[in-house]
Amino acid sequence: MPERLVVIGGDAAGMAAASQARRRRDPDDLSIVAFERGHHMSYSACGIPYFVSGLVKTQDELVTRTPEVFRRDYAIDARTRQEVTEVDLGLRQVRVRDLDGGREYAEPFDSLVVGTGSVPMRPPVPGIDADGVYGVQTLDDGVALRAELDSGRVDRVVVVGGGYIGLEIAEAVAVSGRRVTVVDLAKTPVGTFDPDIGEFIADAVRGLGIELVLGEAVTAVESTGGRAIAVHTAAGRELPADLVVLGLGVRPNVTLAKAAGVPLGSSGGIAVDQRMRTSVPGVWAAGDCVESTHRLSGQRVVVALGTHANKQGRVAGINLGGGYATFPGVIGTAVTKICDLEVARTGLSEREAREAGFEFVTASVDSTTRAGYFPGARPIRVKMTAERRSGRVLGAQIVGREGAAKRIDVLAACIWNAMTAEEVLSLDLSYAPPFAPVWDPVLIAARKAWEAVEIDIRDGRG
Amino acid sequence: MPERLVVIGGDAAGMAAASQARRRRDPDDLSIVAFERGHHMSYSACGIPYFVSGLVKTQDELVTRTPEVFRRDYAIDARTRQEVTEVDLGLRQVRVRDLDGGREYAEPFDSLVVGTGSVPMRPPVPGIDADGVYGVQTLDDGVALRAELDSGRVDRVVVVGGGYIGLEIAEAVAVSGRRVTVVDLAKTPVGTFDPDIGEFIADAVRGLGIELVLGEAVTAVESTGGRAIAVHTAAGRELPADLVVLGLGVRPNVTLAKAAGVPLGSSGGIAVDQRMRTSVPGVWAAGDCVESTHRLSGQRVVVALGTHANKQGRVAGINLGGGYATFPGVIGTAVTKICDLEVARTGLSEREAREAGFEFVTASVDSTTRAGYFPGARPIRVKMTAERRSGRVLGAQIVGREGAAKRIDVLAACIWNAMTAEEVLSLDLSYAPPFAPVWDPVLIAARKAWEAVEIDIRDGRG
Repeated sequence: MPERLVVIGGDAAGMAAASQARRRRDPDDLSIVAFERGHHMSYSACGIPYFVSGLVKTQDELVTRTPEVFRRDYAIDARTRQEVTEVDLGLRQVRVRDLDGGREYAEPFDSLVVGTGSVPMRPPVPGIDADGVYGVQTLDDGVALRAELDSGRVDRVVVVGGGYIGLEIAEAVAVSGRRVTVVDLAKTPVGTFDPDIGEFIADAVRGLGIELVLGEAVTAVESTGGRAIAVHTAAGRELPADLVVLGLGVRPNVTLAKAAGVPLGSSGGIAVDQRMRTSVPGVWAAGDCVESTHRLSGQRVVVALGTHANKQGRVAGINLGGGYATFPGVIGTAVTKICDLEVARTGLSEREAREAGFEFVTASVDSTTRAGYFPGARPIRVKMTAERRSGRVLGAQIVGREGAAKRIDVLAACIWNAMTAEEVLSLDLSYAPPFAPVWDPVLIAARKAWEAVEIDIRDGRG
Repeated sequence: MPERLVVIGGDAAGMAAASQARRRRDPDDLSIVAFERGHHMSYSACGIPYFVSGLVKTQDELVTRTPEVFRRDYAIDARTRQEVTEVDLGLRQVRVRDLDGGREYAEPFDSLVVGTGSVPMRPPVPGIDADGVYGVQTLDDGVALRAELDSGRVDRVVVVGGGYIGLEIAEAVAVSGRRVTVVDLAKTPVGTFDPDIGEFIADAVRGLGIELVLGEAVTAVESTGGRAIAVHTAAGRELPADLVVLGLGVRPNVTLAKAAGVPLGSSGGIAVDQRMRTSVPGVWAAGDCVESTHRLSGQRVVVALGTHANKQGRVAGINLGGGYATFPGVIGTAVTKICDLEVARTGLSEREAREAGFEFVTASVDSTTRAGYFPGARPIRVKMTAERRSGRVLGAQIVGREGAAKRIDVLAACIWNAMTAEEVLSLDLSYAPPFAPVWDPVLIAARKAWEAVEIDIRDGRG
C-alpha cells in the first residue's frame, strides 16, 4: 500500500511539488492525487492579461501541462473541477466536492501539500460582489473576461487598483479600443515602486489613453439588476462601467488551512520552514498562500509570483520525495511592461527600507541601453538605494525602454550577495556597443550611490 | 609650483585617470599633460567596427571628449599627434616627438600614468607589414579602413584571425557587399568560447555570406608594389585580397615601459598592484597595457576591454588624487553580436578551467528569452560549468537571439560572488511573460548544472 500524497490546488506550486515528488518516488511507493477547483491546471497565471488582450491567441498556450499529461506521464491523479472544502488533520483526510456532478467525497492522505494560491483583494464597499466585477486570478477568470470583451457589450471598463495586474489588464483592454479608467488610492500607480518611478508609469498609462484617477478611494459599486454599472469614489466621482476589474493585488488564500488549524504567520500567509513544511507534521505548503522571508528586512512577507511558486513547489516536492532542498527567501524582484515602458525593481523600496529601520542614500542615473552612438540606444534610468555608512545596496528600480528592465537581475544578484555599491561598481559586466555603454547604467548607478555614501560620511552625519 | 602628472596615451584609461585626478586636485596643486600619438583622444575603440560599417555615421560620434574639452573643462593639457618616444625614470622626464611638426622635446614629471594600450597581434609571416594590411586598434585605423572601403577599389577582403574584432570587422565589410574571407588557425572562431558555442558563431558568420577558412595557419601575405594582394595558408590556399585586416586579437603595448625598466608581469602586461601602481614609485599604469588578476584562476591575465580600461583609469586617478580605490580583477566577461546572433561569456571556458587545474561538470539548456507563448520569444542557449563537488559556478556562455546575451551579467555577478549552482537556482530574478519564462534560462542552467554536480557525487567519482 503506497503512502498517499494529496495536493490541494493545481497551479504551479502544487503541481511542481507533485512532479518533483514523483521524480523521486514510484507510484507503488507514493500515490499522488491533485485537486483543482477550476478547469485548468499548471498554467501561467501571469500570462492571463496577454490572453485577454488577444496577444496570446488561445488559452491552451498558457497551459504547461494538462491533467491528461499529469495522469499519463507522471502517474498523478490530477482532477479538475474538484473543490476541497475541508481539511481534517485528525482523520488525515480532505473533503472534496465535484463541482460538475455535485458529489461529495473524502480522500485520505498521509502527506498534504497546500497550494491554494491567492485571491484578489476586494475593497469592502457596497456592490463589490455584483455581476460584472472580475478578479484576474485564474485562467477561468481570464476566459470569462475575454468572453465579456468578445460579447460586444463592453465599452467602458473600470479597473479598481493600479497594481501590476490592474495595469496589465487596463492595457489589454485599452488596446482593443475600450475606454478604460484605473482608480487607485495612492498618488502613483504600482505602489511597490517609489513615487518618482511611479510618475513614469503614470505617464505611460495615460499615453495609452487610459484615464488615471489617483488619490481617491472607491466607495461603492453601483448595480442594476445585480450587474455593476458604475464605480463611485470618495471624491464624489461616478465612473460608468460595463465591466469592473479588481486590480488591487491579492492576498493569500488561507481559508482551508486556517479552518483546519494549520498555523499562519505574522503576514497572514501560511507559516513554513526552509523546507516548505508547516508546523503540522506531514503538511507542506507552497506558492502564493505561504509567507517567505525577505532577505533584507528579515521580515516575513507574502509575495505572490509564479517564479516563487515554482521554486517553492520544487523544494516541497524534493523534500517530500526524500531529498533535501530549501527555499532561501525573496528580495522583492519584479518587472512589468506598460506599452513600451519597462519597469523593474528589486530589494526594498524607499518606504520599505524606512519601515524596516534602514537609513540610506539614493542615486539616480539616466543613461542608454546601448552605447549612446549605437542605433537603437534607448533611455534607461537606474535608481539605487544604499545603506548609510556600510554602502550595502538595499534596493534598485529601473525604468526605461526596450532592453532596460532585465538589467534588474544583475542588481538582484548583487543584493542577494549583500554587496556594497562600491563592490558593485567594480563588477566585470559585459560590454560591447550593441549591448551597453562602456559603463553599464547599472555600474554608473552604483558609482553614484557610492559617492553619495562617501559624501554622507564626510559630512559627518554618519 | 604644482606637482606634474604626465599621462602617456589619450585613450579611455589614461584620460579617465587624468579626469579623476583633476576632480580631486586643482591645477595649482597638480598640472596634467596628456600625450596621444593619434588624432583623437577618449573615444570608443569598440565602436570602430560600427563606424567602418557606416552604422555609426561619423567618427565624431565615437569621441567622448575632445582635447579642447579636456583643456577647457578639465584644465588638462591634452596634446594629440605627440608621440612619447622614451621614458627616463632617472631624469623623471619623457621624450616627445611632434608627429606633425617634427619637433622633439622633453617633458618632466613627478607622477606618470602609462596608458599605452595594445597593438594588434601580427602573425610573423612574410609580407605582413605590406601596405593594405590594417589593424583595427585606433580610431585612425578605423578612419583609414573606411577610406579604403569608400575608395571603390576594394572588393575582396581577407581578415586574418576570427576573434571578436576580426568578426565584427568582417561583418561590417560584408554588409557593404564586399566578398570577405576570415582565416583562423582554430577549428571554430572566437577561441575564447567553447567549440560547441563557436559552431553557432561559425554558422552565423557563414550566414552573412562570409567565407570561413578554419584550422589553417596563414603563411604569407603576397604583395605587388608593396601592397598586399593575397593571403596564403599552410594548406596551400591562396586568398586574393584588396585589403587585409588583422583580427587575431591584441597584445599589450609595453615597448616604452619595458625600455624604461618598468617591470612587466608573467602575462607580458605591465605589473600593477591593486591600486594600479607599478613597482616604480610615482609610476602608474592602466588599460590594455596592464595585467589583471583573474578572480577564478588566480592567474595574471591581460584582457583588453574598454570597460576594464575605464575602471582601471578611474582607480589610478582616484589614488593619484589622494583618494583610495582598488581594481579587484576580472572574470573574463565578454559579449558580441554577429548579425542577429548574440553571444556572451563569463568566467572560465572549459579550456581555461582545465588549464587552471579545475575539474567540472557542464550543463546546457535551450529555452526562450520570453515566456514561450509570448510573441517575440527568441531562442537562447545557456551553458554552465560548475566545479566538481563544490558546485561553484566556474563559467557560463550564452548564445541566442535578441534579448539573450545581456543575461550573462547576472551570471557574472554570481561568479564574482563565488556562488554555487544550487545558490544560483534560488535567486530572486525578475519574471513577467514579456521578459522571461517563469524559470529564467539562467536559473534552468543552474538547476541542470547542480543536478550534474549531484550525479557526479552520487556516482562515487567525487
